[in-house]
Amino acid sequence: MLNNLYKEITPNGYGIAIETEGDILYSKQSEFQKVEIFKSRGLGNVLTLDGLMMTTVEDEFFYHEMISHIPLCSHKNPENVLVIGGGDGGTVREVLLHDSVKNVDLCEIDGLVIEASKQFLPTIAGKLDDKRVNVYVEDAIEFIKNKKNCYDVVLIDSTDPMGPGEGLFTEEFYTNVKESLKEGGIVTPQSESPFANKNEMRKMYILLHKVFKTVLPYCGPIPTYPGGYWSWAFCTNDNDNSIKDEARAIKIEQNAKIYNRELHKGAFMVPNFVRKLANNE
Amino acid sequence: MLNNLYKEITPNGYGIAIETEGDILYSKQSEFQKVEIFKSRGLGNVLTLDGLMMTTVEDEFFYHEMISHIPLCSHKNPENVLVIGGGDGGTVREVLLHDSVKNVDLCEIDGLVIEASKQFLPTIAGKLDDKRVNVYVEDAIEFIKNKKNCYDVVLIDSTDPMGPGEGLFTEEFYTNVKESLKEGGIVTPQSESPFANKNEMRKMYILLHKVFKTVLPYCGPIPTYPGGYWSWAFCTNDNDNSIKDEARAIKIEQNAKIYNRELHKGAFMVPNFVRKLANNE
Repeated sequence: MLNNLYKEITPNGYGIAIETEGDILYSKQSEFQKVEIFKSRGLGNVLTLDGLMMTTVEDEFFYHEMISHIPLCSHKNPENVLVIGGGDGGTVREVLLHDSVKNVDLCEIDGLVIEASKQFLPTIAGKLDDKRVNVYVEDAIEFIKNKKNCYDVVLIDSTDPMGPGEGLFTEEFYTNVKESLKEGGIVTPQSESPFANKNEMRKMYILLHKVFKTVLPYCGPIPTYPGGYWSWAFCTNDNDNSIKDEARAIKIEQNAKIYNRELHKGAFMVPNFVRKLANNE
Repeated sequence: MLNNLYKEITPNGYGIAIETEGDILYSKQSEFQKVEIFKSRGLGNVLTLDGLMMTTVEDEFFYHEMISHIPLCSHKNPENVLVIGGGDGGTVREVLLHDSVKNVDLCEIDGLVIEASKQFLPTIAGKLDDKRVNVYVEDAIEFIKNKKNCYDVVLIDSTDPMGPGEGLFTEEFYTNVKESLKEGGIVTPQSESPFANKNEMRKMYILLHKVFKTVLPYCGPIPTYPGGYWSWAFCTNDNDNSIKDEARAIKIEQNAKIYNRELHKGAFMVPNFVRKLANNE
């Protein structure tokens, strides 16, 4: 039996609490981390990795829409997309909504995340079996080294820079990701909480600015993440963050809970303290 | 002694948890509610009313900047401002940063909120003794009835529509607030969490649309509020939400943690689900 309250407290001394229901649904120790799923009273099933909240059925759309639609709508014709991490499948599901997309590679280091998500988060993972999707259970650090000039968009849907995700926050890795892009390519990593993970965010943007000409933070709420507020980095060397295919953006907007063409612009209009963190001021 | 973890769980089954330090600093039952202040490890002193989080020293700027600067920067020359609720003083402090402001009336029903805040939240309440401020410990429902055609901006910094704040969420009250405005006047109430308090938000906007020609939701993060994400309503009959005095907005921007002229626009570019709630779709 679980305790009836799941708590996740940041080193800063605050965090989230979620009422749980019943026995834990899934709990396995992989080579990399502890993968667990429990049922919550108000947010549906909840995935945690090493005791850190990854996603919940009821609020996952905040994260998955924000990491996907802003970079994909900023690309004129994204056909080949790579998702790094993201084994729950939510980012892949959103990417597939863009009818330009012909192929999605998912590179997730931990097969148990995929197994658990398919079994207990079907509304999130349900599109991992789509015929346009290729799932690679591999370390993205190695995977990306052999990929040159092939992706239109790369989304880095990783855990924090501690644990198995650590190597995804280095200049070498970002350089390899840059080299995997075709002309006009865009990379968007999740870039931590500007309130709860200030130092991690600052360090990350220092590295991103070394590798990419354009590095723009954009933000949105995520109720179940520390601080309730999250950031992503829009990175490119030869593109910008405007909407390129209005018709495709309208289609996405019509079915989205979050995304619309106004929000696409507004998400980049960030608070002063976020600007300062992202520019190392 | 307090427990070492303060938890606030919404009826939806999730919420926030804050590590506390030491004995409770202030705890008094007023005629209206239980007023308490405790020290937290990561967020400074914390004010709660009837066990609901009102503000913390470290994250109060999110709420107080958002409720103040967007309406005040949308007014060409706000001289006379009314703050309803807001006994902690944070909204008044931000309003006073606008050098056009000659007078601020604060109408707070509960004198103990003011007493506790002056004693234990001095960085928030410190401007309540400014000579431009008049503090009225009164029920705003009665106070507003005698105010006609006198305020440039009215900010409703209230608790939720349960408990002592309940009467501040009625058509009659909003109509009286409207009549208290001068030409070009703007009213901005806090309008609840679009994720954690959907029903309360929807009901509130139905009423606001009955009274005001223009009712625009705008949003921002608040790490310690349920859902981490909050909304305010920009209401007017004869104005709009553009910046009217660029020089004043720049001055505010230069010293703000949140506010800048881009964010002023971006805050209104809200997610689809917020648009739908605010338009009762």
